[in-house]
Amino acid sequence: MTADAALLDRARAVIPGGMYGHLDSRVLGPEYPQFFAAGDGARVWDADGREYIDFMCAWGPIVLGHRSPRVESAVRAQMERGDCLNGPTEGFVELAERFAALVDHAAWAMLCKNGTDATSLALRIAREATGRERVLVARGAYHGAAAWCVPGGAGATAGERASLTPFEFNDLASVEAALAERDEPIAAVIACPMRHDMWTDLELPSPEFARGVRALCDREGAALILDEVRCGVRLDLRGSWAALGVQPDLSAWSKAIANGYPLAAVLGSEALRDAAARTYVTGSFWYGAVAIAAALATLAEVETTDAIGRMARAGEQFTAGLAEQAAHHGLVVTVSGPPQLPFLSFADDPDWQVARHWAGECARRGVYLHPGHNWFMSAAHGDAEIEQALEATDAAFAQVGSAVPQ
Amino acid sequence: MTADAALLDRARAVIPGGMYGHLDSRVLGPEYPQFFAAGDGARVWDADGREYIDFMCAWGPIVLGHRSPRVESAVRAQMERGDCLNGPTEGFVELAERFAALVDHAAWAMLCKNGTDATSLALRIAREATGRERVLVARGAYHGAAAWCVPGGAGATAGERASLTPFEFNDLASVEAALAERDEPIAAVIACPMRHDMWTDLELPSPEFARGVRALCDREGAALILDEVRCGVRLDLRGSWAALGVQPDLSAWSKAIANGYPLAAVLGSEALRDAAARTYVTGSFWYGAVAIAAALATLAEVETTDAIGRMARAGEQFTAGLAEQAAHHGLVVTVSGPPQLPFLSFADDPDWQVARHWAGECARRGVYLHPGHNWFMSAAHGDAEIEQALEATDAAFAQVGSAVPQ
Repeated sequence: MTADAALLDRARAVIPGGMYGHLDSRVLGPEYPQFFAAGDGARVWDADGREYIDFMCAWGPIVLGHRSPRVESAVRAQMERGDCLNGPTEGFVELAERFAALVDHAAWAMLCKNGTDATSLALRIAREATGRERVLVARGAYHGAAAWCVPGGAGATAGERASLTPFEFNDLASVEAALAERDEPIAAVIACPMRHDMWTDLELPSPEFARGVRALCDREGAALILDEVRCGVRLDLRGSWAALGVQPDLSAWSKAIANGYPLAAVLGSEALRDAAARTYVTGSFWYGAVAIAAALATLAEVETTDAIGRMARAGEQFTAGLAEQAAHHGLVVTVSGPPQLPFLSFADDPDWQVARHWAGECARRGVYLHPGHNWFMSAAHGDAEIEQALEATDAAFAQVGSAVPQ
Repeated sequence: MTADAALLDRARAVIPGGMYGHLDSRVLGPEYPQFFAAGDGARVWDADGREYIDFMCAWGPIVLGHRSPRVESAVRAQMERGDCLNGPTEGFVELAERFAALVDHAAWAMLCKNGTDATSLALRIAREATGRERVLVARGAYHGAAAWCVPGGAGATAGERASLTPFEFNDLASVEAALAERDEPIAAVIACPMRHDMWTDLELPSPEFARGVRALCDREGAALILDEVRCGVRLDLRGSWAALGVQPDLSAWSKAIANGYPLAAVLGSEALRDAAARTYVTGSFWYGAVAIAAALATLAEVETTDAIGRMARAGEQFTAGLAEQAAHHGLVVTVSGPPQLPFLSFADDPDWQVARHWAGECARRGVYLHPGHNWFMSAAHGDAEIEQALEATDAAFAQVGSAVPQ
């Protein structure tokens, strides 16, 4: 029996279903472990000691690589002073100042812990500011696991999900249609910077969509909320729609901002400052200095080492290699997404069975990526890791190619 | 200008209102700092280097003292291996096993980050299990800062708060009346182990109330949820109502379980295991191994060093001293709560002005406690700290006594 199987047996006794949430490995094939033991740079080790080049980065939080020295050093230094005190530390102010300086639309910041805390708080601030309840949300978009947004909605009340109207990402007409569906003004439109729903090719926003949603919010007196939880710190430190010239009123950040240490933030424009100040919110660990020290070190390292550029180049190298390999094996694939958060799907694969097969073969060969969810590059992915990974992915394509009828 | 004032100036530019949440010092007097720099054992230091004996313990999380060696050592060891990986570590299973072994009603555990995550998830599991929406909740009780429970409800929709009916803590007839108010069955009753609302004397549950609520839930086929976020790990590791012979179906834990590292847990009985497995929930940092290592070390230290007994004795010593001092200065006070979470109020003090005056004088003399919120003892409060604190509190009582008309 593997260590993984033994742990899963123990887990089944004391954890509902054996595991839960996005790290429940049942959605993946038997080639994937459920339990991990360690991480370092771009590599992780499972409970049985098997090594993987890591293209999931804990589903986003790890942006500089596991145990990145500058972050770990900042954390250890802060631990010498303290973490959870009777008030925030200077670091809290510094981090709010950093966000306000880095992110174009941000005049202020409020820190919290989960990405869901940040998206939920952004909705509350928009509602407090406008005195309205209704929010337009892209169909199928993931904004967290609170009652209002959790996929499936198990255990949520009807009332908790009543004030949302869906639209289609990248379809401005559908946003207008959603608005017109009810004679009730809207508090906000919330969107991710790109479409990154699971089991779907990734889709960048068209400039017309992003600008159109911005104009619609201006016209309606509603807030535009950008959910940067997944894209933030990987696409553009100024904000993921900055290059399109589009500024949100509120943005929700988490995952990568502290390289894995638990932290999230709502950033807001000047016009929403008073509403934010009226929106009571708090958490026992939200002022903890250790995660804040990790965030300050992470943002400094990202900025000064061109981490985003390096992730983009590594992602380009990886996906270019994958596309070439697939073609060589006679497989038609689609590479989608920006190179820092790339994804690959197979043609004629409606049930994702080919993707699952290929990803499982990659896992067996020490490359950890997901068949139905975008991958995450980190700044620790260097030439050596990409080359090693591409050897494994080529063998995995060969397996899949030989199984697919030509 | 003090460092605190300078930091507050900077904060006002980049944080709505200058600060937010329960660590916003505006509710306290000018004797209180907003910003802190360090903590060690039972002591904290503010941004200006002033030292305090700490009776708030970061509002609960610090149960072994700041930077408790066993916990810090476990954290550093885990940091050498990794924190946020592509799945949980063995520690996740160990911690679920520990909770199931320690807490009488618990057959399983689900980990999350905030106390609010745990209370919110407990409601969702109860609703999923019963197919009902309505929950009875004690008026004025604090269960977190999500839309359904946040005091004031700024930015929450009416629908998000619609499925709750209030009752009065320790008043079983009011629970029956709340139940009868609507012809709609209930999913759950949620209660804290004691009444610990702010600006109110603490109130332990009567055995009749606790047993009566349990019987009512059994009769109605509803879940009894105990919100252990504040009391957990300080009153009874078996569960705060274990000594009353009352087991909840679900309990929500956070704050002290990892001595300040961000972690929370929902514990549940066997009957709710399947509903819990159906209730999708997750968070980017919920599987992080560092906070879990901290929790395992914290629970081990609490258990093996009789931390609860030591906190109780220190709290008794402190409150007995306070009562004697108050009487000596001709002041009528009420000491309330269990000694691990004590509180003191003054007679004839409807606006809490005397309490604020006294607490402010304590703060000026290096004793940090709150005029309107229960205090928290930690296992780091030894004789020396209590004696030093009592010197300051005596001087504070003298100040207050001389200001109060006899």
